[in-house]
Amino acid sequence: NSTPSLDLEMVFQDRAAKLGKSNSKLIVVASLIDKPTNLGGLCRTSEIFGASALVVGSLHYIQDKQFQHLSVSAEQWLPLVEVKPSQLVDYLQQKKTEGYTIIGVEQTAKSFDLTEYCFPEKSLLLLGNEHEGIPANLIHHLDVCVEIPQQGIIRSLNVHVSGALLIWEYTRQQVIKQKQQK
Amino acid sequence: NSTPSLDLEMVFQDRAAKLGKSNSKLIVVASLIDKPTNLGGLCRTSEIFGASALVVGSLHYIQDKQFQHLSVSAEQWLPLVEVKPSQLVDYLQQKKTEGYTIIGVEQTAKSFDLTEYCFPEKSLLLLGNEHEGIPANLIHHLDVCVEIPQQGIIRSLNVHVSGALLIWEYTRQQVIKQKQQK
Repeated sequence: NSTPSLDLEMVFQDRAAKLGKSNSKLIVVASLIDKPTNLGGLCRTSEIFGASALVVGSLHYIQDKQFQHLSVSAEQWLPLVEVKPSQLVDYLQQKKTEGYTIIGVEQTAKSFDLTEYCFPEKSLLLLGNEHEGIPANLIHHLDVCVEIPQQGIIRSLNVHVSGALLIWEYTRQQVIKQKQQK
Repeated sequence: NSTPSLDLEMVFQDRAAKLGKSNSKLIVVASLIDKPTNLGGLCRTSEIFGASALVVGSLHYIQDKQFQHLSVSAEQWLPLVEVKPSQLVDYLQQKKTEGYTIIGVEQTAKSFDLTEYCFPEKSLLLLGNEHEGIPANLIHHLDVCVEIPQQGIIRSLNVHVSGALLIWEYTRQQVIKQKQQK
């Protein structure tokens, strides 16, 4: 079994108890990201919006000074899971069987515009590498791609910012749904 | 006259011609921000979403290596305006007379939740300092405060990310309005 098998239940319960509320069903997968600054920033942002886990290519990043500077200790509260890039296909398949929709943050011919995409409750966001985005072999395993409409001359957003906007948009839609149900 | 008076018209026209579309009426004011990394990141994000200008406390930041590393040359396409913190009250008053709504990104007892706030077309976002937020004497000069609902244990988002979420939310609402008008 090449997919990771971590007993996160205790971590979730511990965190939920501290927060006094249930966790979301949002998983942020950053295994393709190389820069410790981007990973540290994503750790902080994911924790603040109550993501259920941040998946990284290596847990060694936690020791990195730049990671720690940007994460401001969010790694103590957010479950981090290690999934190496070579394990991603298996990991995504496993999450599909658990009911997650696999969402790539990438510009493709078939991508949904973020202003028009409606996030499922069980959403997994796959972020691309800083330089190469999401490799072609992984694109085939996604349920959908979502892109952020961009107007500028500079080509693209920083991957931490792209991730933050999708995490926010997921959160915003969930908040609105919860209000409508009351 | 202590308010800045820059002839930006040429810059706007030049940029609009390159982009082949009109500019938005969004001004991002980052004069209270100290860190070159946050300013460089905001420059990149503001340019990508077509903000009309980024206001900084000093144009010297453009020479900073960390700024340049994060801005990825966005400062060549986005008009940057220098307004020192001591000039902010006058600058905000001037923008009010030009029809801008002055929006502070800050947690206060009267802040609107970002999921519920509807941005006017002419919006000016005032971002707070990394450590002290928006000082009390400036809060009085704002038309409204908007805060980002946060669920985590870590206290607050990085100021570049906070700014990016409000810039995105403004953009998203404008896109939806434009579609409804067609």
